[in-house]
This record gives sequence, structure tokens and C-alpha cells, in this order.
Amino acid sequence: MIMQCFQWSILMLVLSSFLFVSLIINCFTTGRAKRPNIIIFYADDLGYGDLEPYGHPTSSTPNLGRLAAGGIVLTQFYSSSPVCSPSRAALLTGRYQMRSGVYPRVFNVEMSGGLPLNETLISKMLKPEGYRSAAVGKWHLGLGNNSVYLPHNHGFDEFLGLPASPSQCRCSVCFYPNVTCHRAPCSPEYSPCALFNGTTIIEQPADLLTLDDKYAMQSRRFIRTNVETGTPFFLYYASHHTHHPQYAGKETSGTSIRGRFGDSLAALDWEVGQIYEELKENGILEDTFFFFSSDNGPSLSLENFGGNAGLMKCGKATTYEGGIRVPAIVHWPGQITPGRSMELSSTLDVLPTIASITNAKLPNVTLDGYDMSPFLFQGMPSLRESFFYYPSKVDTEHKSYAVRYKQYKAVFYTEGSALSNNKNKDVDCRGTSLRTYHDPPMLFDLEQDPSEQYNISINHSPERDIILKLTKMRADFDAKMVFAPSEMNKPRDKNLMPCCNRGCSPYPSCCHCISSAPRANNDPLALYKKPMEKII
Amino acid sequence: MIMQCFQWSILMLVLSSFLFVSLIINCFTTGRAKRPNIIIFYADDLGYGDLEPYGHPTSSTPNLGRLAAGGIVLTQFYSSSPVCSPSRAALLTGRYQMRSGVYPRVFNVEMSGGLPLNETLISKMLKPEGYRSAAVGKWHLGLGNNSVYLPHNHGFDEFLGLPASPSQCRCSVCFYPNVTCHRAPCSPEYSPCALFNGTTIIEQPADLLTLDDKYAMQSRRFIRTNVETGTPFFLYYASHHTHHPQYAGKETSGTSIRGRFGDSLAALDWEVGQIYEELKENGILEDTFFFFSSDNGPSLSLENFGGNAGLMKCGKATTYEGGIRVPAIVHWPGQITPGRSMELSSTLDVLPTIASITNAKLPNVTLDGYDMSPFLFQGMPSLRESFFYYPSKVDTEHKSYAVRYKQYKAVFYTEGSALSNNKNKDVDCRGTSLRTYHDPPMLFDLEQDPSEQYNISINHSPERDIILKLTKMRADFDAKMVFAPSEMNKPRDKNLMPCCNRGCSPYPSCCHCISSAPRANNDPLALYKKPMEKII
Repeated sequence: MIMQCFQWSILMLVLSSFLFVSLIINCFTTGRAKRPNIIIFYADDLGYGDLEPYGHPTSSTPNLGRLAAGGIVLTQFYSSSPVCSPSRAALLTGRYQMRSGVYPRVFNVEMSGGLPLNETLISKMLKPEGYRSAAVGKWHLGLGNNSVYLPHNHGFDEFLGLPASPSQCRCSVCFYPNVTCHRAPCSPEYSPCALFNGTTIIEQPADLLTLDDKYAMQSRRFIRTNVETGTPFFLYYASHHTHHPQYAGKETSGTSIRGRFGDSLAALDWEVGQIYEELKENGILEDTFFFFSSDNGPSLSLENFGGNAGLMKCGKATTYEGGIRVPAIVHWPGQITPGRSMELSSTLDVLPTIASITNAKLPNVTLDGYDMSPFLFQGMPSLRESFFYYPSKVDTEHKSYAVRYKQYKAVFYTEGSALSNNKNKDVDCRGTSLRTYHDPPMLFDLEQDPSEQYNISINHSPERDIILKLTKMRADFDAKMVFAPSEMNKPRDKNLMPCCNRGCSPYPSCCHCISSAPRANNDPLALYKKPMEKII
Repeated sequence: MIMQCFQWSILMLVLSSFLFVSLIINCFTTGRAKRPNIIIFYADDLGYGDLEPYGHPTSSTPNLGRLAAGGIVLTQFYSSSPVCSPSRAALLTGRYQMRSGVYPRVFNVEMSGGLPLNETLISKMLKPEGYRSAAVGKWHLGLGNNSVYLPHNHGFDEFLGLPASPSQCRCSVCFYPNVTCHRAPCSPEYSPCALFNGTTIIEQPADLLTLDDKYAMQSRRFIRTNVETGTPFFLYYASHHTHHPQYAGKETSGTSIRGRFGDSLAALDWEVGQIYEELKENGILEDTFFFFSSDNGPSLSLENFGGNAGLMKCGKATTYEGGIRVPAIVHWPGQITPGRSMELSSTLDVLPTIASITNAKLPNVTLDGYDMSPFLFQGMPSLRESFFYYPSKVDTEHKSYAVRYKQYKAVFYTEGSALSNNKNKDVDCRGTSLRTYHDPPMLFDLEQDPSEQYNISINHSPERDIILKLTKMRADFDAKMVFAPSEMNKPRDKNLMPCCNRGCSPYPSCCHCISSAPRANNDPLALYKKPMEKII
């Protein structure tokens, strides 16, 4: 009897110990990792309606589909600007572009300005937490004298990419094996399209057919190296796709039924797949916060070579929904429940969210973002209830063009853009539709009318009260908005343009290097292949 | 040793027998059921962009989402007509509406015509195979003298529904508990909105707040009864949603963030859920071919009370993609691989597909459809390579307005419609855009340009050759098209209008019956509840 009791006790002890250990393991495995890796994958000019999860009938993006199926697809996500440089500045700083001077419009390589070095980017914010950061792809936040504005001075440990978009890659082949670019300018004496590794130009002009391979290999090596050393990392992968000129290398050229734009989209998807596979191979999908979005709406002026805003009005460079509402997917297995979220959020919210999940200290400056954690991880409402629409050509006189509060968008100014196609069937979108002030503002219920078709601004309650509220919100926000001096308006100098042979003659046509990087067996990818064991 | 060998043999025999039985069971369970049940769920005026799987940012349809996740979502699916009656005639006969005389426009209850009784509908086609058929919801294929054109004369064993849409339900309450209908006509002396059970009017005007409950209960009882008797069945569930006037009963009123249209969509989704749950409860999901689609594009003139065509051009009553390309989902677990299909198909193909999967004999008449089985079940290309766009007001002079061949759409005529909103930002969509002939035709690549924005018709190869090919295809098809005499143009007679008290006085205002059906405990649903054991 005693023996039996003893045996039972032993059994209970073993079971209890097992339970205890299981719970402890459980705590470590399903609790939030203290230092998740961060990946921001940023597409270029990809419209709200361009992806399959957003309803495009012929786009085929299996890797983005995999990300969407395992993540949260956001349907009310806004870029801070309808054009490139400001949108990127805001993404990386968590602040409206005016605060950092990244306005109006976008940078080019002759400008002496850039994103000011005293701004705290996500990369800088994560440094004290022990993160290593890499920027890959399109920078477009300034070059300046001696490449001072490139990522190395913004807290990034690595950079492989172009200072702006490949639209500067003149006379290039865009589609494997030898199809020239669509509407590509061709003045072959000089191409400012320089591929930088850190601050060194390693190829000028960059070879578009192998560019994505280089980016993917650099990214994969970066991920793998950090995994090997146990270092948390931040990868900012700013793809060139699907911006003009669309291009596609060997893997994706001619693979799409959506024509050359579809090929560029396939290349984007291939890039996403490369990152995803590397995470998977290293077993760190669950330790990685993977954020995907686009900088602004589609460049409709390119017609079949441009993207599609889906059911949103107009496209790039306008403050209509098609210009500024973008696709966004958040993937973090184990931390989020896959599905779709209709909560309001913005690129401005990415930095505070990353601070929250990494326990990093927020920069001690005015931020415009909100931590997305409550709605991403806890099924709570978004902390963001409003959003302010600033145009590409923002100035201190007109300030914000529109404000969104909950489902309502009050529109004070409208303005079309040539980038949204001067032949657009909707004349509001055309560049010929000049800035127009609306008093009273137009009012749209974006939950009922995402296509911004039906102005419900009428002179009685409840709409009148909503308009009064939104008018005050806009006035208050604009009054507090501090415009830093414009970096775009700083002096321009042709000598600032990138040159792989600085000091050569005749300048600038001598700035031409097939590859200044060491090669093995004439393989242009050798430099990047070296640290890799396996390429998929 | 012998004993051991014997034991082994016995074991092997048992294992073999088990394997054999398993294989036999497998044959029966995963092979195609010989007589699958058929469900066609047809939405009303639901646009290409209205559902979550087609990119709407605020629609919420979990039951349709479940259907889509387990089925194939079709992105190149066409209704045969941009308006209601013709589209339904073609769906049920597999023939263009002109062949049956269901043109121009739609039926109303004063018309003496209807879908001719010598047409073979899916219900009639399945009768020799032992199927029982029920029609539930909107009929809209004619009423005629003594209700001659109602479903009972078209091979249906049961019918519970309205002869047309609830837009005839005058002065009704549309949203639980007491919200009146949007833009509802109000002349209370007579409402032709009569709820038929078979050929008997059981409620006039129909109570919209309980109509869906009645439909769902009737459908669930029909399914359950057939399961109990081992009878294969065909349920044609033609929902009133999301047609004007939008309505929603207790379960769904006020549940959507997409306003009243969203409530109607939620009611549609609730109906889908009722059918799905009944199939699930009876364990026959895998024995049931469930087809979901919509009759035509959204009624944009209703603005926030109308649907959304997504990225398609214009809407209802036009031959632009927004009028005629519709959402479609095919669900048949075990027989199809869930996903998305970009194969070309049409409502015209539904009858031949059902014939194929049920081994039913095809009607001995000219059919316009193709069996969808190759692409639905075998991963092969669609047998359909072309599609002809006939307008709502089709006539023998102008015939088809456009033709699609593979990715190309050649457009010979364009015409707007007031139903696509006379204030549409795209003037092409407006009713003021009269019929216009295009010579040469406009040419669109719908795989690259689903929004029909960029005419690529130019006077050199390869486009010229494509245009020549499509022009010939259209001429050949139109030349062979046989127009039956128009049923819409037959004499009208106000005495044909439905009346629950035929012969009463003063006619027609005396045609008013709260409910002519037997009741228990004053419960208006008692009649329908009776055969049901459980209502979810």
C-alpha cells in the first residue's frame, strides 16, 4: 500500500515537473520575443488595387499572397505623402515630411539637400538596442556633397542601392534578355544611375537585369550573418518595383499575363520571396516583424505600364485616396491573428510600433505616429482616429488639403496631377485640374464610399457638425505643424551628381564603370554570392 | 515457428483486408459523387468590387469569405447581360437571352410575356436524373396570365419568392426595426409585391423584415427533406440583395460599417451562411456543387446605396466591364483545389457544367455555354475563348456591342446608362452618353488593363490583325444569332398584376393580405418553421 502510494507520488512529481517545464518553455516560445527582427519592405508606386488580395484580377504574386495569408492585410493604411521622398522620410522618422524639410516634391541627384542628419530614423533608434541595420534598394532621401545623406550617416551599417529610382538609368535594357525600357530617356553620355555599396559606387550605370539578384543576395547574407552572430537586425528593403521604368531579370521577365507591369510586379514578388525564404530557412519567421507597403499610389500616366488604384480615385501625386492610400501587410506569426484589418493607420505609425515591440526609446522629437500594437496584436481599436493629407507641393500657405476623422474625409483643396494621367476619364485627376479651394469642404464617408464619389456635405446636422469638427481639427493640426526649411530648395550643383571616377575627364561622360567591384570568373554577381551557401 | 508464421499471416490478411476496405471507401468518398446536389446562389446588382475577396476595403462577408477560402474565386466571369431578367434567363437556359425572347430590358408584372415554357431550364434538365428542384427568392422571368411563367411550369417542384424585385414593395419598412426604404415609391393603395408559395400568393405586400428568414427556412427544409429521402436536389436561390431597395432584418440591420448597402450585403451573407450551415449539418458539403454569382454590375445611380464595380469601368446596364463582369465563386470540397482562376467563363457555362457533373442530357437546342469542368476540376484551360457583349436594349440592327477573345476586347458600340449614374465622373458611363459606333473598334487588353482605360487600337500589326480577327468573330456570331420574338414587347395588361384576392373590389387596392397562410400563435414564420427541427 505504501509502495503503491510512493509510486503514485513519484508519478505526480514527474507529471508536475513536466507540466512546469512545459509552461516555462511555453512562456519562452509563445511570449513575445524581446528583440524581434524588423523588416520593412517598401514597394514603389504600387497602387491600392495592384495586388491580388486587394482585388486585381490578373496580378499574380504568390509570395505576397503567402505573406497576406499569414498576416494582416490593412485596408485603411495611408502613406504620409502621394510622392516618393517625403513618404520615405516620414516612414523612417515617424514624422510628417515637413518637419524634416523633405518637401516639396522629391529629391534628385543634383540637390545639395537631404534628409537632415539630426533626424532619428528607425535604424538610429534601434542602435542602442544592439540592432544592426541595412538599407537595400532605392534611397531617395538625398545624396548631397560627398554622399553625406546616404544611409551610412543615418544609422545604417550597410547600404546597397541607388540614390534614387532607375528612371535615371538611361539607355538601359529593362527586360531580360534585351528589351529596352519603356519611355526611357536616352542620352548615353552620362547616366547618374549609380549603384552604391556603402558610399562607394560599384557600378555605373547599374545593370537592371541583375540588380534584384544583388539586392536579394545582400539581404540574405545580412540576415544570415546576423542570425549566426545572434544579432537582432533591421532590414529596410526599398524595392524599385513597380516604379518606372519597369524592369525584370531572368527569373521574372515575360512571366506575367499582366504585361511588362506584371513582370515588374513579379520581380517585386520574387524579392519578397527571397527574404521570406531566408527567414524560413533560418527558422526566424516567428521572430521577425515583417511590414510590407508602398510609398504612394500608381503612376497612371504610364497607362498599361503604370499601376492600378483599384476602386480608389485618381493616383500618384494627388491627395485623393488613390494617391495616398496604399496596400499594407503585417506578418508576424505567433503574434498576430491572420486576417484583415479596417483600422486606420499610416506609415507614420511604423516607427512608434517598432519602438513598442523592441522596447526602443522613442526619439525625443515631435512624432506624428501612433503605436499600432493595440489593433495588430490585441484586437483593440487603432489609437489613430485621424489623418491629415498633405500634397506633394505642400507649402505653408495651403498646408493640408484634407483631413480624415474616423470614416469621414473633409476635403478643403483638390488638385490633379499629370502623373495621374492628363487623359484620365475622371477630369479631377488630370494635371489640368488646378488647385481648387472648397468652402464648405466636400465630405465623404469613406467606409460607405471609398471611391470618393458622393459628396455628402450638406448644410444640416449631422453632416454640418462633422464638417465643423473636421475643420477645427485641421486648423489646429496645421497651426501646430512646424515646417523645417525645404531641403529641396537648397542650391543645386551638377557636380554633386554621382560619378564612379570622381575627377575623371571629360566629366561627366567618363563616369562610367561596368563594375568597380572585384570579380571572379567574370561573374558580375560573384561579390554578392560569396557569403551565400545556397541561392534559391 | 509455424505458429509465429501463422500469426504473421493472419496479421497480413487483416491488414490487406483493411487496406482493401479503405480503398473501396476511398473510392466512394473522394471519387466524384454521381449525383452531386446543385446550388446556385444568385446575388442581385452586386458589383465586381463589392466583396472582400474582390478588394472592397469595408465589406464584411464572413460566410462568402468561407465559401471563397474553400472554393475557386473567378476573376474573368461574365454575366450574359448587364440587366436582370436576360441575365437570369441565360443562366438557367445556357443560352443568350435573345434566343428565348427575354429582351430588351426586364420584365414587369403587367407584361403578358415570360420565359417561354418550351425552354429547358437546369431544373427541367435535371428532372429525368431524379433531381428535385426549388426556386427561392427573386424570379423575374415573367408572371403572365394565371402566373403561367412562374417556376412551377419550368421544372421547379417548389417556389417561394417574389415575381420581381422588392422595389415594387411600396411604402415598406426596409431596415429592422422601422427604417423606411431608400427612395421607395409610396402609393399605398396597391403594392404588386406579392410573396408566392408555388402559385399561391401568401403575403401581399411581402414583409421585407422577415422575407429572408422565410427564404432561409424554406431552403433549409428543402435541403433537409431531400437528404432524408436520399434525393439529389437543385436549389436556385436568387437573393434580393443587394438590389434597390436595400433591406435587412433583425439579424443584420445596422451591423455593417458600410452603411445600409453594407447591411443588405450582410443580409446576403447571412443567407449564404444559412445554406452553408444546412449543408454542413447534413454532412453534404462535399456532395454539393455550390455556385455563387451576381446577375449584373452595381446600380451606381443609387450612390452610397448602390454597389461598387471595383476597378471595372461603369456599372449596371452598360457593356463596359463594370456592367457585365461579376464576382463568382465555385465551391465543391474534394473536387476543386481552392484558389483563384483567371480562366474566361460566363453564366452561359453554368448549365453545361451542371450537365457534365450530373451526367444529365443537354437540351436539344442551340446552347451558348461551355463546360467549365476542365479548368474547375482538372487545371486545364477554359474551353471558352470568346465572349460576346449584348446590351440591355439589344436589337437585331445593332446586335453585340463588343467581343472578347482571350485577353482582347474589341468595342464596336459604347453607350452609357442612367443606372450607371448620370453624375458619374466618367462621362462615358452616364445615360447622356448615347450609343456611339466605333470604326475601327476600340481595343483593350483586359489582362493588362481591366479598367478599360487605354485603347490600343492602332493601325499596324499586331493590333490590326487582332482587330480584324475579332471583327470577323463578331460578324460571324451575330449572323448566326437567332432572335426569338421579344417577350417584353407582348401586350401589357394591368389585370395581370398579382392580387392575393383575385376578383375583389375595389381592385387593385383590395389586393392586400397580411398573410393568407395558416398561422400558429400569430407567428408569421410558423408556416415555414413547421418542418424545421432547428433554426440557427
